[in-house]
Amino acid sequence: MPPQIINRQWLLARRPEGQVLVDDFRRYDAPLPRPDLTAGEILVRNLMFGFDPAQRGWMDDVQGYMPPMAIDAPVRGSAAARVVASANPAYPEGAMVRGLFGWQDYAVAGRAGEADPVRIAPDILPEEALGVLGAASITAYVGMLDVGRLGAGDCVLVSGAAGAVGSVAVQIARLYGARVIGIAGGPEKCRWLIEDYGADAAIDYHNEDIRARLRALAPAGIDLFFDNVGGSTLEAGIAHIGRFGRIVLCGAIAGYNDERPAPGPRNLMRLISQRAEMRGFILLDHLDRLATATEQLRQWVRDGHIRYRTDIQHGFETIPQTFLRLFSGASRGKQLLRIDGAE
Amino acid sequence: MPPQIINRQWLLARRPEGQVLVDDFRRYDAPLPRPDLTAGEILVRNLMFGFDPAQRGWMDDVQGYMPPMAIDAPVRGSAAARVVASANPAYPEGAMVRGLFGWQDYAVAGRAGEADPVRIAPDILPEEALGVLGAASITAYVGMLDVGRLGAGDCVLVSGAAGAVGSVAVQIARLYGARVIGIAGGPEKCRWLIEDYGADAAIDYHNEDIRARLRALAPAGIDLFFDNVGGSTLEAGIAHIGRFGRIVLCGAIAGYNDERPAPGPRNLMRLISQRAEMRGFILLDHLDRLATATEQLRQWVRDGHIRYRTDIQHGFETIPQTFLRLFSGASRGKQLLRIDGAE
Repeated sequence: MPPQIINRQWLLARRPEGQVLVDDFRRYDAPLPRPDLTAGEILVRNLMFGFDPAQRGWMDDVQGYMPPMAIDAPVRGSAAARVVASANPAYPEGAMVRGLFGWQDYAVAGRAGEADPVRIAPDILPEEALGVLGAASITAYVGMLDVGRLGAGDCVLVSGAAGAVGSVAVQIARLYGARVIGIAGGPEKCRWLIEDYGADAAIDYHNEDIRARLRALAPAGIDLFFDNVGGSTLEAGIAHIGRFGRIVLCGAIAGYNDERPAPGPRNLMRLISQRAEMRGFILLDHLDRLATATEQLRQWVRDGHIRYRTDIQHGFETIPQTFLRLFSGASRGKQLLRIDGAE
Repeated sequence: MPPQIINRQWLLARRPEGQVLVDDFRRYDAPLPRPDLTAGEILVRNLMFGFDPAQRGWMDDVQGYMPPMAIDAPVRGSAAARVVASANPAYPEGAMVRGLFGWQDYAVAGRAGEADPVRIAPDILPEEALGVLGAASITAYVGMLDVGRLGAGDCVLVSGAAGAVGSVAVQIARLYGARVIGIAGGPEKCRWLIEDYGADAAIDYHNEDIRARLRALAPAGIDLFFDNVGGSTLEAGIAHIGRFGRIVLCGAIAGYNDERPAPGPRNLMRLISQRAEMRGFILLDHLDRLATATEQLRQWVRDGHIRYRTDIQHGFETIPQTFLRLFSGASRGKQLLRIDGAE
């Protein structure tokens, strides 16, 4: 009998209350999923994980656009993986794929009723597939162009602008000829905004008053506000929204770890006087744009029009700590983790 | 020399701080505006005033879609009036007109740069011109159909549903085949909603828990929420907004008298998970719809499809008290005031 292969997992041990903690997760050694695959299924070996603030939301016992994560199941999360056994001709053995394979070494994917894994082309690196060509960038693409109806003359505001979604949103706005103001925390990230991502101005919310800066930078108001943050940042953006302005709600990292939701913006009535709209969206509704967006992003990256940063941590055992970097502001680019030794 | 005609006025004595008070206004006897009109101008005699919560907003020193009211000038407000002198062939002497003629007996209108007075057809009563065929109803029409994109199968929620805008919004929704839930304060207004305006259900926010009632009445969520109230009512509506739901922000009577804006809805992130939109609008942007809306409303009223209530107070001296009825919930229908003796 061959030696039993262990499938290392990180389980959701309990639902986080407020701030997510390392102790909300539990390491578990499961047996390798049985290789007798049903037609359509594949067995994948995860090589790299991508982390996203939305995962925190899925941990709450709230029915959103996805069911809440189950307790004592591997934490739901994106991974780039290699197909190691296949009962699906679309995903041959050896192919690279990405999907919500969870925090574990191995996963069975392709089950009926689950989202299909996405093939990763041979010339794409795992960190590109999970990063600049991944869901965050496509979210930025759809959010700016389809939901936000970006126009060339727009004055655009992006919060969380140094993050995975925000940095691509900034660059798309610039590529379309808009004037772009980015909000990020700390002088280092603000420097990236100007020097790497081509923002026209950066606001450091750690050290500057967002409203005062917006008054100076956008006296005629913001045409399109792409908000990844929520909370007081959203309120400041509403205070400076221009006439017929559009606010795209992409996320609310400021609030993901709040035990009780913080008060919302006090100035929503400005949406009336400015005839502005605010709209939430999620990528799942725009999957018809996936191919176009991916190809366009690939072209931009290849041509050097879109730059990106990845923050790659290492080692399966540090997955929870790596996830927490998203919320402490420690991440220095798209947060990834490589499982050392896997290939 | 003929006896001097007095032009009675109510001036804005000071900007209200929080709750508007009778003492925020001051009576003043001005001389009659000189009858030497410039070409285009008309002199009108006000007969009836219409009151609207938006007037409270115009009293604050905030640049909105209109400049703030001036201190020591007649309070800006709608009136139905008779033309008593004319230098404008579009408004012959004796014609009835409505416009923002202010809280005074006489006004000069038709000045360049001001909104044109609207002619009132001979078969329309002043209380109809200021009420069911006035700005409030046209606001409901545009808000439901153009901004809210009302559909026949929609589950519609209207707050402030017994008010001038809300009651027409409820009836338009019903005329278009939607299912309508109205929110109003007290059993009397809730009875109007069901018996007079044809709502499918009424929620009494004085005596019922809005969220619990919405859970029971609209388990699949609200498709279109027409909000006139803001505050906790808006928050409750967001909590029950359906997938791809639309929230139309028409007003926020709950907050007009707040000295400091109350915290906004804590659950805006539900706009993301539900892919919902929230949109503010004001009638001024939809003046191209005025003729169509007025004619349609007139037809509906004539055919008995739209019912309405007016609350007509009397006497120039009671104008401020009548205005305050809007905010105390005392108004029993569109709040109007007739200047006794004028005709």
